[in-house]
Amino acid sequence: MASQPRGAGAYDAAGVRVAEADMALAGLTDRLRRTWPGGRGNVVLDFGHYANVIDLGGGRGLAICTDGVGSKVLIAELVGDYRTIGIDCVAMNVNDLICVGAAPVTFVDYVAVERVAPAMLLEIAEGLAVGAERAGVSISGGEIAELPDMIRGARPGGGFDLAGTAVGTVQLDRILTGAGAIPGDAVVGIESNGIHSNGLTLARKVFLSDRGHGIDAILPELGQSLGLELLRPTHIYVREALDMLDRALDLRALLHITGDGFFNLTRVAAPVGFLLDALPPPPPIFRSLAERGGIPAGDMHTVYNMGVGLCAVVGESGVDAVIDAAAREGKAAWRIGTVTDEPGTVRITANPLTGDDLVGRDKRFAPV
Amino acid sequence: MASQPRGAGAYDAAGVRVAEADMALAGLTDRLRRTWPGGRGNVVLDFGHYANVIDLGGGRGLAICTDGVGSKVLIAELVGDYRTIGIDCVAMNVNDLICVGAAPVTFVDYVAVERVAPAMLLEIAEGLAVGAERAGVSISGGEIAELPDMIRGARPGGGFDLAGTAVGTVQLDRILTGAGAIPGDAVVGIESNGIHSNGLTLARKVFLSDRGHGIDAILPELGQSLGLELLRPTHIYVREALDMLDRALDLRALLHITGDGFFNLTRVAAPVGFLLDALPPPPPIFRSLAERGGIPAGDMHTVYNMGVGLCAVVGESGVDAVIDAAAREGKAAWRIGTVTDEPGTVRITANPLTGDDLVGRDKRFAPV
Repeated sequence: MASQPRGAGAYDAAGVRVAEADMALAGLTDRLRRTWPGGRGNVVLDFGHYANVIDLGGGRGLAICTDGVGSKVLIAELVGDYRTIGIDCVAMNVNDLICVGAAPVTFVDYVAVERVAPAMLLEIAEGLAVGAERAGVSISGGEIAELPDMIRGARPGGGFDLAGTAVGTVQLDRILTGAGAIPGDAVVGIESNGIHSNGLTLARKVFLSDRGHGIDAILPELGQSLGLELLRPTHIYVREALDMLDRALDLRALLHITGDGFFNLTRVAAPVGFLLDALPPPPPIFRSLAERGGIPAGDMHTVYNMGVGLCAVVGESGVDAVIDAAAREGKAAWRIGTVTDEPGTVRITANPLTGDDLVGRDKRFAPV
Repeated sequence: MASQPRGAGAYDAAGVRVAEADMALAGLTDRLRRTWPGGRGNVVLDFGHYANVIDLGGGRGLAICTDGVGSKVLIAELVGDYRTIGIDCVAMNVNDLICVGAAPVTFVDYVAVERVAPAMLLEIAEGLAVGAERAGVSISGGEIAELPDMIRGARPGGGFDLAGTAVGTVQLDRILTGAGAIPGDAVVGIESNGIHSNGLTLARKVFLSDRGHGIDAILPELGQSLGLELLRPTHIYVREALDMLDRALDLRALLHITGDGFFNLTRVAAPVGFLLDALPPPPPIFRSLAERGGIPAGDMHTVYNMGVGLCAVVGESGVDAVIDAAAREGKAAWRIGTVTDEPGTVRITANPLTGDDLVGRDKRFAPV
């Protein structure tokens, strides 16, 4: 939750002095932005997008973003299964990259470990490789750093952190930012695979700390162990995104639904808002979290993807093609709403958790 | 020390079960290599080089590498000065990138913090920006992740980890690997700025743990506090490297002297060895470390750069141009040795710490 995707602008500072953090972030991005002119890396976008783009000349752009999997690694450690966390790491990056219209090309990983544990590293690599294959990228390099005085985990000696960087290509005249979104456009949501890689800190608090469940507890509403449910790897949306980008759809924006939940929609670079009046029923994990944690529906829709991992904003005529593209990758998709003329506002009609209407601005939902 | 630059092949596993780690590393790289065909990211080099290169078509290559600053962050934390650690982070990456002949273009950083501390983040950003300016790259994105259960440091709440990824461009027919190195070529060393970002774990052990010095201790041989000496930011060699690459020198290889010390020379992709018969007197920190830590000269030359941060392997006729290129950036450089016909072997004549001759293979020096 408390990650700051700087290439993403959002700063979900749960537990952090927000004003101070926001000021620091502004100072930090101001300073970093001063590196843009003068160097060889001619930056095309501002901070705040899912990824940035470098002008390589001749109309060609190099897209780049970096992200980690956060405290989901602690779930992997508790379960003792490291085979899929690498998929999450690739997914968190390539799913961001496609949101600027780029085709992901290659990936490098950074693994910081408390101690080098060969079996664990092999499993992490397996997940990275599977993720890369799903995304159609190579893993061209990486770093394993053993940092016993800096990394800790759920058990002594078992800690690790996992992050990566994805690079892709995009024609400069085909960068996607959502600038073309207009009221009346449709919002299509593509299914997630559970909570993906955001909100794990809150989920750990609810299930493990507050409720005292073990990681192997089988909760009836989940039909499987908590650990396996929370470990479900993040869906990778590259193939369907490239399919959409290749067709002549009126595709305005792609939005990876990460730490700010449906407020990720407000990252479209147009003065619009969103009405979500047809969200699908959320997977059981979200109702379980909300009920066992006493988390209000508004907060749930701010922290979690609620079953929708990627949104496409598209002219009405493109809705079926988007749903088809997802279906060809075995994923359900739904027309979940419409672009409105209320800038920065996300309205949810009859949210599927409680049935209430919600209206949100500035990353905060309230009941209507 | 115990970092594994996978794009670098080396695996300096101090304190790690080496055989097991090596086997895991082989399995890991085998698995990751299987992502190379079939995707969009057409990989040009194998693992083991300083960076990898992706074929972008039309003869253009994208170079990429990722690295962190390791436990040098703990020195920054102990001193309470975070203004230069970002320079190290940029340096560790761009200095690798130039070693494949690439011009660094852009950089993204990954900061994992135990707690978001705005003042600390601003100082880290300052260093990143200064490093980027020295390297002529933009900082186009980044991630700050608050991971209180995964990151720790020298003091409760103050921990952080810092890594990054650099991307550059290189013409495919101008990739530098050292494949052209031949016996008789010269080795030119360019000065380092102290211990840079490798061997800090050992340095902390010697000075802080074993000897019990405080970080503010002023050691007479250093003429300044231990903390400031160990924090000296890594030199960035981009400008002189680009200068060398631009000229029609017989430049065979550039070698960033990192965790394996002078065994980094053996990363040239040619069946050659090295005779270093004119190493410069090392900066005082290295003698201090060797003497106070009782570290043999061979180990010192394996772990540390000994005052030489970058080596250029160049035809004899190019020696002066390399020294000139360094001088224009205000750095001393010396003709330190010669390429030999002993594959994988590094000989040091009259090493400047003890005067002994050393001969090394497989990352281990022994007195002759």
